[in-house]
Amino acid sequence: MLKFDEELFVKVVEKEGLSFQSQIEEIVDHICHKGYSNIFLIGAGGTIAMMYPYEYILKSQSTIHVHAEIAAEFIVMNHQHLSEDSVCIFTSVSGTTEDTIAAVEYCRKKGATTIALVAEPNTPLTKMVDFCITTGSEKHSFDTFFMLLYMFVFRFMYNNNEFPQYEQFTKEVSLLPQAILSAVKSFDQKAEEFAIKYKDTEYHMMVGSGNLWGNTYSYAMCILEEMQWIHAKSIHAAEFFHGTLELVVEDTSVILLKGEDETRPLVDRVERFAEKITNNLTIIDTKDFTLDGISEEFRKHFAVSINWAVLSRISVYLERERNHPLELRRYYRKVEY
Amino acid sequence: MLKFDEELFVKVVEKEGLSFQSQIEEIVDHICHKGYSNIFLIGAGGTIAMMYPYEYILKSQSTIHVHAEIAAEFIVMNHQHLSEDSVCIFTSVSGTTEDTIAAVEYCRKKGATTIALVAEPNTPLTKMVDFCITTGSEKHSFDTFFMLLYMFVFRFMYNNNEFPQYEQFTKEVSLLPQAILSAVKSFDQKAEEFAIKYKDTEYHMMVGSGNLWGNTYSYAMCILEEMQWIHAKSIHAAEFFHGTLELVVEDTSVILLKGEDETRPLVDRVERFAEKITNNLTIIDTKDFTLDGISEEFRKHFAVSINWAVLSRISVYLERERNHPLELRRYYRKVEY
Repeated sequence: MLKFDEELFVKVVEKEGLSFQSQIEEIVDHICHKGYSNIFLIGAGGTIAMMYPYEYILKSQSTIHVHAEIAAEFIVMNHQHLSEDSVCIFTSVSGTTEDTIAAVEYCRKKGATTIALVAEPNTPLTKMVDFCITTGSEKHSFDTFFMLLYMFVFRFMYNNNEFPQYEQFTKEVSLLPQAILSAVKSFDQKAEEFAIKYKDTEYHMMVGSGNLWGNTYSYAMCILEEMQWIHAKSIHAAEFFHGTLELVVEDTSVILLKGEDETRPLVDRVERFAEKITNNLTIIDTKDFTLDGISEEFRKHFAVSINWAVLSRISVYLERERNHPLELRRYYRKVEY
Repeated sequence: MLKFDEELFVKVVEKEGLSFQSQIEEIVDHICHKGYSNIFLIGAGGTIAMMYPYEYILKSQSTIHVHAEIAAEFIVMNHQHLSEDSVCIFTSVSGTTEDTIAAVEYCRKKGATTIALVAEPNTPLTKMVDFCITTGSEKHSFDTFFMLLYMFVFRFMYNNNEFPQYEQFTKEVSLLPQAILSAVKSFDQKAEEFAIKYKDTEYHMMVGSGNLWGNTYSYAMCILEEMQWIHAKSIHAAEFFHGTLELVVEDTSVILLKGEDETRPLVDRVERFAEKITNNLTIIDTKDFTLDGISEEFRKHFAVSINWAVLSRISVYLERERNHPLELRRYYRKVEY
């Protein structure tokens, strides 16, 4: 596959990624033993988007109080639920994202417990937090972070007596890297076809919901807009009919991200509408992938990882077809503001 | 002013709108006396967007647990914090919005207390909820709803011993209709100039934060997209630098909504960037309006109302300049899905 080193993926996500499980359990158990009042999931751009699935999962399955907050806003808004009893979780690929570092400093001043998942070792973020998991590789860092966040969040739920299936779940987490790999391989041709067909398309609507809303938001903003300079609007499937639908005409590119949680009927509704109007409807559905060893019950959760991994295949083919490197920036970290 | 009946505004927003204060206090006091565990602010499109400012205000000033949720998603997601001790607040202009009605039914089944603000009398919604404020006029319904929501939210905070300034605040709420009227008049020419200059512009970025994020989201989706069929992307000012900035070039229309809460510096940061890059930067700043009798302390809250009212002036001039009626729809309530 284009720009996909399978051996590296297995090393980073499966071998090294899974090895963090006992460390994560120790961290969570320590916090739960001490007691905490709520969990803050904090990030900027791709890393706040990455938190939205876990906020959704907690809201829909747990009574733990959870707040997903945008880093730069969080440090000025005086959130009244942040206290020394709060647990604040961050992720960062580079370990140097300014907004995130400022938010960690803010949370520490408030006496909260801070946890970070960081790809790059020995970066500012790794040294600032109470607990840091350093994955060591920028490659496949999002795949690894998603997996580690499952471990964190479901351990908190387990300790809160809300997830008796924890042991089974962790067994399935250990199968996730291979499931991702298999999904990516089976999607690869579709990704290439998408990139060839849409390389000159100037605007996409991306629609998703539930635990896939974060990916919807992130792919539109952090990949299509930031890395390919293509206009893209992310629209929540439940909100699509309250405005954006009026812009759909017969050649509008509409991309639906279908997962397997309770909100799937909301995306079905958009599909029923869009298939009548546009000839450029793309459906990316986690149900298309077998996910060996993953039980029906947990497929919906792992859909977040699967969806992100297959979307990432589209990125590399867009890069090639459009001759536009994913790393190219006009302004970010280049212009002062 | 074009399509603005001042007499009607005064009747609907000031005379009738303000008259609901004692009724609202009775409702809130009754609920607080009985006890409640959290507040859900629920809506769809414009009416969930309208709730975001109050979610922000509560998070930043109160320990009351608050959740703003999209109606159609809320009824399928099994939100674990919804219970018979929850207070669920809705607004609807028509009283017939399907998603909202379904959400009210859902909340009632869970035994929660339901409150609605509805413009049209004798509509399904008015009969379904425990407490209904029927304003009686679709005209200026958002202006009225915003004002009534201040009354609700700050009364909850007052009863929670978090807002000793309540008496002063309600005095200032009573001055708000005239402050809006004055702001609208002083902005009207700028609104017309904007519509003339940008009538053929095919894409706008709208940027806001804090308690103006809801207006930012709503104006892009429910006015520019739905009512004018113009592509518009709403971007949170704190997120702007994590993707969308890369699309700004010298003729990109960027509209900044500046309010007066703690997040203003985030919009300042976008301004410093955008003014270097594009010639089509529009700043709509509540600081430009005098707001007679409104204290410095409370201006930030009333900025929500003021911002929405002045944005609405742009809508009527866009309608005229583009010869595109605001009521025109391709699909909404016309196509089955």
